[in-house]
Amino acid sequence: MHTVGRTARDASRQIARADSRAKDTALDAMATAIERDSARLLEANGKDVDAAKRKGLEAAMVDRLSLNQKGIAAMAEGLRQIARLPDPIGEISDMRYRPTGIQVGRMRVPLGVIGIIYESRPNVTADAAGLCLKAGNAAILRGGSEAIHSNQAIGACVHEGLRAAGLPEDALQVIETTDRAAVGELITMREHVDIIVPRGGKGLIERVSSESRIPVLKHLDGVCHVYIDSRADPDKAIRIADNAKTQRYGTCNTLETLLVHREIAPDVLPRLATIYLEKGVELRGDEDARALVPEMISASEEDWFTEYLAAVLAVRIVDSMDDAIEHITKYGSQHTDTIVTEDWTKARRFLREVDSSSVMVNASTRFADGFEYGLGAEIGISTDKLHARGPVGLEGLTSLKWIVFGDGHVRS
Amino acid sequence: MHTVGRTARDASRQIARADSRAKDTALDAMATAIERDSARLLEANGKDVDAAKRKGLEAAMVDRLSLNQKGIAAMAEGLRQIARLPDPIGEISDMRYRPTGIQVGRMRVPLGVIGIIYESRPNVTADAAGLCLKAGNAAILRGGSEAIHSNQAIGACVHEGLRAAGLPEDALQVIETTDRAAVGELITMREHVDIIVPRGGKGLIERVSSESRIPVLKHLDGVCHVYIDSRADPDKAIRIADNAKTQRYGTCNTLETLLVHREIAPDVLPRLATIYLEKGVELRGDEDARALVPEMISASEEDWFTEYLAAVLAVRIVDSMDDAIEHITKYGSQHTDTIVTEDWTKARRFLREVDSSSVMVNASTRFADGFEYGLGAEIGISTDKLHARGPVGLEGLTSLKWIVFGDGHVRS
Repeated sequence: MHTVGRTARDASRQIARADSRAKDTALDAMATAIERDSARLLEANGKDVDAAKRKGLEAAMVDRLSLNQKGIAAMAEGLRQIARLPDPIGEISDMRYRPTGIQVGRMRVPLGVIGIIYESRPNVTADAAGLCLKAGNAAILRGGSEAIHSNQAIGACVHEGLRAAGLPEDALQVIETTDRAAVGELITMREHVDIIVPRGGKGLIERVSSESRIPVLKHLDGVCHVYIDSRADPDKAIRIADNAKTQRYGTCNTLETLLVHREIAPDVLPRLATIYLEKGVELRGDEDARALVPEMISASEEDWFTEYLAAVLAVRIVDSMDDAIEHITKYGSQHTDTIVTEDWTKARRFLREVDSSSVMVNASTRFADGFEYGLGAEIGISTDKLHARGPVGLEGLTSLKWIVFGDGHVRS
Repeated sequence: MHTVGRTARDASRQIARADSRAKDTALDAMATAIERDSARLLEANGKDVDAAKRKGLEAAMVDRLSLNQKGIAAMAEGLRQIARLPDPIGEISDMRYRPTGIQVGRMRVPLGVIGIIYESRPNVTADAAGLCLKAGNAAILRGGSEAIHSNQAIGACVHEGLRAAGLPEDALQVIETTDRAAVGELITMREHVDIIVPRGGKGLIERVSSESRIPVLKHLDGVCHVYIDSRADPDKAIRIADNAKTQRYGTCNTLETLLVHREIAPDVLPRLATIYLEKGVELRGDEDARALVPEMISASEEDWFTEYLAAVLAVRIVDSMDDAIEHITKYGSQHTDTIVTEDWTKARRFLREVDSSSVMVNASTRFADGFEYGLGAEIGISTDKLHARGPVGLEGLTSLKWIVFGDGHVRS
């Protein structure tokens, strides 16, 4: 692994200096190679899927592992989309004259070497490689052992793209060993790796972030809230609470606990419950909520902390916005929280006082997403506060250095 | 320490919501209390200084520990200056409409709880407390045991300021134990502390950053370079190289290795050497440099890596800008590096290709400083790439969250 790290570090210097055209040429060439080699990719993926089934891996995992023609086309299209994004590197901002006569500003620069650790989804190999390259970084890609043949086949296309643009292959290295010790080495090579991005289940992310000696850009829980205020427009409230929960159940920005102001609850909660129950959502409420919706089962303290990622919703009646904020502060995961209200002052306070990576007014939590926010692509959603918070696009894979222009200026 | 952490976390929520007026009132009241209590502060400091002398601590350390009337006035003035800076918290930027109709932007928010670990300088207690408060954070301040009485006396003024503004005293806690184990606890309380800022010598910073389980905003070496290009204006080159080395010897942005292009060396190096030698700077050069300046002693490989923080300078002749950049990449510490040149293309390439927290053209490395850059104040200079790079002011003690405005918008 240390050889991998050293060669990645060397290659990162060349990628940092590469111009936009070379990087985009490489990305387009990767996309072309992936499409051309689709039969080979499907064959390699077939080997992984067969082995996974033989090993008796669960159906959801086999599903995440499986590639089809459509998935391959999406991978190629994703790389082409990254090529079309503006190049963040070298952008100069805030250049200002100082009283001493120097000009001071900042230039956007790559981070260096990024370690990506992911589980069974083979498309991460192409997506993450593309994003790291566009942001001027080298990457070390360590996918799950069950996807080894798929990842190698995709890696060959990635390397072909780099060669086509005259860029070093070492810039994007797909680790071929399935040895778990390799992960342990990767997350402790501080001299070679600048940041670790784990992508996968909570178990992986917790293990990586507790053992890493390198900063980790991580995504933990998404215990998201919608708070329906006493001054909410009932129709908007119902539309948002419905969409936030039922548009997709398994995503991190899905609503998990609904908070409803006592005054408006009789008006909105029964109507909402009818919608949820029709869609097969299990409702778990506190006593006051259950008084309004008899079909609700009783929520326990544990429910307020839970990210269900399923057709289950916790519901609580609160006496005020302060109570709602207190609940979110105590039980939430600082991911995404929404207030539904027509009250200007409350909206303004909620925006300021809720300390989550996305705070919304009158909009569905499902909007918390790099594409919806206009980032063009997303390497993940960060629940950390340092460096990058919330959906992370190309900018999160870069840093700012200071630049100073003078004309023989010295300090006195 | 866990009680300290928990109460700091609670207080941080109140500080995050405090308005600018309350924070500035507290800062001004701290300044007033420090000036009023100057006799008490000098007495407490006298105890620390006496004890340090009795223990036989080295003179430089006793010097850093000592407060006088002027130092106390500077502390108060520093707090008042922080009060006059614009409040970074709540600033909304990049608010844009998206095709779906939602508006998406970012709001600047506090980090939460900041752990400051510092050595003998008691003024850090006031400076760091002021900066953390202004940026909406709580802070846990752990100063050196040799400054314990001084820090407690300053801490009392800080608390008086918080009380005067109706803010919780727990927001700025000065640790009173001199037990070294307290530091170990502070840097591992991930649930209570969001970032650690060590301020002091290299030993402290290395220990803290290797043992911390919390992200560290750190400053390591400042091996800064001036590269005098073949197309430099000789007068500017001499002025800059002189200022960068001799304006102050002990600072992290002081020049440590001078690189001179072979073509211009006969013109500038002997003239520069005369200035340096007159000021008592010891010169250590490679063979080619020594051929031009016989007074130079021979530089070893070790010299290129060394941050002297003293009247010593390493000098090397290079054949090209590429060689200069290669030297800086190999031996530098990514702190501050300057090119002196009139050549547009070379300046442009140097700016892009040198991967340091400050990269300059025709200006002295000594400008790398929060005040010179217009930050108004500085908590330190970061040599990391994540989160904050280079001089760190209030902004480095904050984070950005996403905010979304809708009007009943849902995702389709």
